[in-house]
Amino acid sequence: MAALPSSLSGRVVTDPDVKATYAVDESLGAAAPADYEVVRARDLADVVEVMRFAQQTGTPVVPQGARSGLAGGGVAMQGAVVLNVEALDTVHDVDPLEGVAVAGPGVINADLKQAAAQAGLFYPPDPASSAFCTIGGNVATNAGGLCCVKYGVTADYIRGLQVVLPGGEVIRTGRRTAKGVAGLDLTGLFVGSEGTLGVVTEVTAKLVPAPDPALTVLATFDDLERASAAIIALRQERHRPSLLELMDAATITAVQAVADYGFPQGCAAALIVQSDRPGHTAEDVQRYAAVLESAGAAEVAVADDAQEADALLAGRRALNPALEAKGHRFIEDVCVPIGRLTELIRAGQDIAAKREVEITMSGHGGDGNLHPCFFFDPAVEGSRERAEEAFGDLVSVALELGGTITGEHGVGSLKSRWLAQELGPAELARQRAVKALFDPAGIMNPGRVYWSS
Amino acid sequence: MAALPSSLSGRVVTDPDVKATYAVDESLGAAAPADYEVVRARDLADVVEVMRFAQQTGTPVVPQGARSGLAGGGVAMQGAVVLNVEALDTVHDVDPLEGVAVAGPGVINADLKQAAAQAGLFYPPDPASSAFCTIGGNVATNAGGLCCVKYGVTADYIRGLQVVLPGGEVIRTGRRTAKGVAGLDLTGLFVGSEGTLGVVTEVTAKLVPAPDPALTVLATFDDLERASAAIIALRQERHRPSLLELMDAATITAVQAVADYGFPQGCAAALIVQSDRPGHTAEDVQRYAAVLESAGAAEVAVADDAQEADALLAGRRALNPALEAKGHRFIEDVCVPIGRLTELIRAGQDIAAKREVEITMSGHGGDGNLHPCFFFDPAVEGSRERAEEAFGDLVSVALELGGTITGEHGVGSLKSRWLAQELGPAELARQRAVKALFDPAGIMNPGRVYWSS
Repeated sequence: MAALPSSLSGRVVTDPDVKATYAVDESLGAAAPADYEVVRARDLADVVEVMRFAQQTGTPVVPQGARSGLAGGGVAMQGAVVLNVEALDTVHDVDPLEGVAVAGPGVINADLKQAAAQAGLFYPPDPASSAFCTIGGNVATNAGGLCCVKYGVTADYIRGLQVVLPGGEVIRTGRRTAKGVAGLDLTGLFVGSEGTLGVVTEVTAKLVPAPDPALTVLATFDDLERASAAIIALRQERHRPSLLELMDAATITAVQAVADYGFPQGCAAALIVQSDRPGHTAEDVQRYAAVLESAGAAEVAVADDAQEADALLAGRRALNPALEAKGHRFIEDVCVPIGRLTELIRAGQDIAAKREVEITMSGHGGDGNLHPCFFFDPAVEGSRERAEEAFGDLVSVALELGGTITGEHGVGSLKSRWLAQELGPAELARQRAVKALFDPAGIMNPGRVYWSS
Repeated sequence: MAALPSSLSGRVVTDPDVKATYAVDESLGAAAPADYEVVRARDLADVVEVMRFAQQTGTPVVPQGARSGLAGGGVAMQGAVVLNVEALDTVHDVDPLEGVAVAGPGVINADLKQAAAQAGLFYPPDPASSAFCTIGGNVATNAGGLCCVKYGVTADYIRGLQVVLPGGEVIRTGRRTAKGVAGLDLTGLFVGSEGTLGVVTEVTAKLVPAPDPALTVLATFDDLERASAAIIALRQERHRPSLLELMDAATITAVQAVADYGFPQGCAAALIVQSDRPGHTAEDVQRYAAVLESAGAAEVAVADDAQEADALLAGRRALNPALEAKGHRFIEDVCVPIGRLTELIRAGQDIAAKREVEITMSGHGGDGNLHPCFFFDPAVEGSRERAEEAFGDLVSVALELGGTITGEHGVGSLKSRWLAQELGPAELARQRAVKALFDPAGIMNPGRVYWSS
């Protein structure tokens, strides 16, 4: 690949071990290519310099933050410069009057929440990786999380962006004022574009009033169908839960194997349900408990205080490391209409049985967005292939049910082969044309999202 | 212009008087051109047919709904076909489980609200024209309204669209599921595009839980500055008002001239403040009343019941007809950061004094979005020109204050001359390039939004 300009020398990672850590994200099969560079930008000027160089030399650019992505959008590629922006981690402004925060893309999600909380405000989106994922990455994937059932996704909170385009042009999209309709709003194009259009260098996020500390109900079920019926009932509550998470038996076993998070043994499914409604958390969780009982829950436990509530949620937050510890896996991220959730769950079980792979079924039930995992043993011949086939089977089922191949992780590398199936060839061509408008040389994360791998 | 295809003959408006009503919207100076056609589409196929014809013949298309626009985006132009979609007025679906409604673009805003309410849900965006404006027009302008201070704007509630592009291709953007990040989301591009990219033929809107019937506080002030200070104080309430409207003395006089809406005589400004928070409206309005008193209100009246509250809001809703009755006017729609509201108000007063025109100052104070009106008398030489200069002066002030030339009405024809000033030449060129991608022949509302008139 072309030599990076000397002006960037202090930003280039040279230590091979350190460099290797910047080659991959958390996606399955991520591996360092033979030839790539890593630039750790310290400011806007560094990003501009990389984007100018990349355009001039036709060098692919892989924008990158905390490398917590699960779809492979941030993995180094052959001959590319990995442009890491985690050092752009300043919260520039929290404006309680306007209800916005302005932050660098490297600000950790939890840190933005904390900055907002200090002003009595709330930045809702909360991927399970909240403690270490960055706002820039959240914007790149239009990240969801646990609170979406009440609060929506990242896109619902992004009011404007500063973006560096290929060639180094710095643009601003959207607005900072409460209203503003002068010209096209390009913000929504960049949210969820997975680094294929430009590099986000500043985010203006909408903040909302702070909720109360959440209270929690935990319900267990003897079968997954009753649990999904309870989800459907809770979705229609006037005061919708602020969290509505599903875990199946295999998931609970994996979490309890790490530490005792208080889940009872031997149930087929658990639902964790929260309310954060100011002044009404205790009332809400009592009502949710009644709904869960009506839907056929085996046991229902209501947390009496915020501490106990936090302890129960800690179990949910431990889910990803627990499943990681369990073994190699393909992680699903399908999302279906809530009314089709039971069908999705049954299909997951059938697929796992047919393909003879182990499955865990968990995720954001209240959104119809599950993360079933298909496990495999690399030492067993055909095991990985069967898990991969199961992964593909479930994607097809999600589309048949009127859902999507990815609810919040992104298409990245792992799901690009199915994008045409969801969008159709005409729409895929249109989206490639939109990309070409911003990235005529095709240097931004080439081969990802829009193209089959 | 080219002859419309005979397949559309039953859709073409031939009666000259009826046709003339479809030539204009509510914008100042709107007038029928010499040569144009009006097609009243009855279904998707009609829209496709018009868009195919228009592309083939290079005929300009002016998409149109209820013709309530104030910026001139829906006015017939020479040689163009006005494509009215108000007959696509079916609410196809209200899905309480998913929390969405699917509606034709011709559905009246208030009718969509009503359909949502029947399912115990709420479609928040409420332009003052709610009783007669259409959802399609709301999408075209990214309409705001009275409840935005709490609930945001139309864009915040549009999850997906069906759009017919020039040439007749029917596309879908966005999603119906709670989450979904497969590919680029083009929805935000079309929301607020003012008919320059395509014709919206179906809208999937997000619904939220129904609020309580609102209660109201009315406060009067001896000067506008104290009123804007009160707005700033109320914006920072944890439970933000669901409505926070400002009216100055001249506005109140005009409204009271139509009927007695209960506003007291002789005050410099009034604020109307509402709460619709379930279970807490009475408590909220009492707290708002205390905030208003602290901010220096001369008089504060709290409506005791929903009926009285409605009566007070009726005065605000009567504002537009009242000002229309007052005479010819340029209607502003600037929006500034809330913290700059007092400066905007002072600038409006100074400009009116300097240009020797009458001004009324009112609007969505809680959003920093005012609709000052500059009145003129066509019979007085130079009167219109001075009002127009005042209009331009205030646009420039809004930009200097970090605001926008248009908060919710759109750029249309009336404000296209200032768009470059807000966006800059590079961004304007980029937006024209985005338009060209969807409308390569430049037939969609040509000359509007992006071009100086």
